[in-house]
Amino acid sequence: MEIKIVKDVMEENEALAKNVRERLRAGGQSMFNIMSSPGSGKTAILEKLIPIIQSRGYRVAVIEGDITTSNDADRLTPLNIPVALINTDSWGGDCHLGSNVILGAMDLLESEIADIFLIENVGNLVCPAEFDTGADSNIVLISVTEGEDKPLKYPLMFRVSSLAVINKMDIAEFLETDVPLIKRNILQINPEMKVLEASAKKDLGLGEIADWIVERHLSLKG
Amino acid sequence: MEIKIVKDVMEENEALAKNVRERLRAGGQSMFNIMSSPGSGKTAILEKLIPIIQSRGYRVAVIEGDITTSNDADRLTPLNIPVALINTDSWGGDCHLGSNVILGAMDLLESEIADIFLIENVGNLVCPAEFDTGADSNIVLISVTEGEDKPLKYPLMFRVSSLAVINKMDIAEFLETDVPLIKRNILQINPEMKVLEASAKKDLGLGEIADWIVERHLSLKG
Repeated sequence: MEIKIVKDVMEENEALAKNVRERLRAGGQSMFNIMSSPGSGKTAILEKLIPIIQSRGYRVAVIEGDITTSNDADRLTPLNIPVALINTDSWGGDCHLGSNVILGAMDLLESEIADIFLIENVGNLVCPAEFDTGADSNIVLISVTEGEDKPLKYPLMFRVSSLAVINKMDIAEFLETDVPLIKRNILQINPEMKVLEASAKKDLGLGEIADWIVERHLSLKG
Repeated sequence: MEIKIVKDVMEENEALAKNVRERLRAGGQSMFNIMSSPGSGKTAILEKLIPIIQSRGYRVAVIEGDITTSNDADRLTPLNIPVALINTDSWGGDCHLGSNVILGAMDLLESEIADIFLIENVGNLVCPAEFDTGADSNIVLISVTEGEDKPLKYPLMFRVSSLAVINKMDIAEFLETDVPLIKRNILQINPEMKVLEASAKKDLGLGEIADWIVERHLSLKG
């Protein structure tokens, strides 16, 4: 019985995710869903990545998911872009964003104001992977502080993503992190994954992430 | 309707958690549930902590929760203690351990073989906090790599825990982590929390964690 209900929720989520994508295509827009553990650096990456995407001529809006607080959304204020904040504690502290709230956020943002939407999902390597947000592509961040085996232990997250960003590369050497092993573990789970290295703190690798997003955006726009 | 069902699952979980605790009291045993983000160092702490607890004359068994893989359980093999591994992917990749599987693990372990049970929950700052495992106390780990604001962003985890361990203290200075701010944020959410600093890598603070656990064990044993 429980399984039946989970399936219903999932089916509704899939249907609404399809709506999100139809709306994106109609507007010549695209959406990217960024996921990771808490503290891997999603907001720090966004702070540096968004100006680069803007400098290439694209308008960016952000959908911020957090259980509670506006900490992450506040950090994006200096960018002066449209941000929709979703606090999931109003419906029980959900550990992910569903496609229903993404549709709501698109309404809130008046969706024509952006070319590229970036979702910062709730910090979590499990549940966000299970729920299609309606985004065109999923991006997973992993920090060099988290241990090399995370792709093997949280495989669904790495299976549903198209781009993996290994963040905090500036401290990899100090921590003696085996970065090639992280890459091998990612590719073992998802051989199609594009893997990029970055450091939001030291401005490394952000141009490549922007390239990847813009290229996808253009191919989706057709 | 969805809310109704979640409540039923929660009620069942509470009832079974009560069973776990009754069984622990009957056996003069205690159980501690360790939770954190992926990669905060739960397994590394266990590897060093368990021999210390053993050296004080207590038998330890571990219940390991992971979505998939036996990586963490394998790392405990050298300790030569009873370990029950729970892979949640067999029922949909659950992001937490419920009290039902803890009861199952106690059966599997033949529960009389330990004085103190340690649960290593699934790496996740959200869902494990929502489900009472039946453990006597919850312990939350936070690593200095994760950012100072995590207690504010994942408050339930810090509300349901009695001990917070700030791990990877050996790299706090290098990362310029504001450890006093982490502590203030923890105490803002839960003024009753005991907060300890540790480094599993450098063997710092593990005796204090063992002290805390043994003291709780003795007071529960009565």
